[in-house]
Amino acid sequence: MFSKQQQKYVQSLQIKKYRQEHQRFLVEGAKSVQELLNSDLEIELLLCTPKFYAENEKKLEKISVEQISQAELEKNGTLQSNDAALAVVKMRHNAPLTAEKDEFVLVLDDIRDPGNFGTILRIADWYGIKKVICSDSTVDFYNPKVIAASMGSFTRIKIYYTELSKYFERLIKKGNIEIIGTFLDSENVHHFQFPSSGYIVLGNESNGIGESVEKLITKKITIPRFGEAESLNVGIATAIVLDNFRRRE
Amino acid sequence: MFSKQQQKYVQSLQIKKYRQEHQRFLVEGAKSVQELLNSDLEIELLLCTPKFYAENEKKLEKISVEQISQAELEKNGTLQSNDAALAVVKMRHNAPLTAEKDEFVLVLDDIRDPGNFGTILRIADWYGIKKVICSDSTVDFYNPKVIAASMGSFTRIKIYYTELSKYFERLIKKGNIEIIGTFLDSENVHHFQFPSSGYIVLGNESNGIGESVEKLITKKITIPRFGEAESLNVGIATAIVLDNFRRRE
Repeated sequence: MFSKQQQKYVQSLQIKKYRQEHQRFLVEGAKSVQELLNSDLEIELLLCTPKFYAENEKKLEKISVEQISQAELEKNGTLQSNDAALAVVKMRHNAPLTAEKDEFVLVLDDIRDPGNFGTILRIADWYGIKKVICSDSTVDFYNPKVIAASMGSFTRIKIYYTELSKYFERLIKKGNIEIIGTFLDSENVHHFQFPSSGYIVLGNESNGIGESVEKLITKKITIPRFGEAESLNVGIATAIVLDNFRRRE
Repeated sequence: MFSKQQQKYVQSLQIKKYRQEHQRFLVEGAKSVQELLNSDLEIELLLCTPKFYAENEKKLEKISVEQISQAELEKNGTLQSNDAALAVVKMRHNAPLTAEKDEFVLVLDDIRDPGNFGTILRIADWYGIKKVICSDSTVDFYNPKVIAASMGSFTRIKIYYTELSKYFERLIKKGNIEIIGTFLDSENVHHFQFPSSGYIVLGNESNGIGESVEKLITKKITIPRFGEAESLNVGIATAIVLDNFRRRE
């Protein structure tokens, strides 16, 4: 039985404070829960409709499952429409992340919109980026809207939150690193020679990369404009930079 | 005075049926209305706060303006928050569009999400695309969410709705044309040589390009994947195709 106490617990995980207290987060909807079941993330509790249960029975053997109605799923989760499943999942504890030899790490400085962040995770995953470092001011990775917008990519990307400029300063002390950032009026990304490893920084939706991080950028690049739109969305910018990065291969 | 009858009229334009009946649409918010004032689109009525009026007085001389409160703007428009302006604008009557020499036209087959459509218009505008042809099933260009998401690019892009396969068949009869579409497992867009002019087709969010249009595609391209995400959002795909298209320049 799905008790009142459990309901209160599940609903509390919609809020960051309680996610952090319990070190648990919510994964909702058929696509995201399917990806979750194929990952190594640990599921504490799965709520699902009898239909979802029947379709996925083999994968659910070792999981604590409660079968509930679509209406109950929607009442306890954040999705307007959810006829499949909702999972309570244990957070991973990621250690500080760094770029290995021949690896690029994506760095997000103050991304505020959960939809943008989730989209960026999906794009990073498409382009084979496995690590994302976020400023402390970046929206919570475990926000249900981020998880939903990532379309399952939250299962494959490692995340680390930190104060970016201090973090980079410590890395720089240990040896040369390349920190690439997108700006206006810098080197055209179409002609830019990406180094073999490093960090690609994307900045806030309105203000771009903050001053304290900008000082540490070693290579400034620009997405060339051929028409009249004033700017590109940060998700679009991420995709174009990563597509250009991968062309060299 | 902003009469009850005017209120009813403005509110009715949130709905496609009434937009078509009156051949008018709504433009809301500071950024979009600013872009509108810099365009050649004809404004029938501008509702704005005294603050917006004071800041833009010179541009408003020849326009019928009513100054109203933020609360009234929000009551009569679709934006949750609007402390600037709302305009009632005459639709343009676009003739059938075709690709000129050295020109590419973007073609949208059954794009359903207004946010995606608006984002695509913004990207098209960034990459200097001036014409977009849409299947009849594509969401209404004049939907307030499309206008908002286009971030002003709705003022610079010409739109034409039609039954795509018949439209292309008529063009093909008149002479050779190149119709490029994105598919899985086709030629890598990183190595694809774009022709000098033609049509770039993007398909529905879930199902891609429809069969009747697919038959007419002359060049199939693929955005290469380096990681594990299953797919890219259609706005992201548009940006990557157009960025690759513009590299040749």
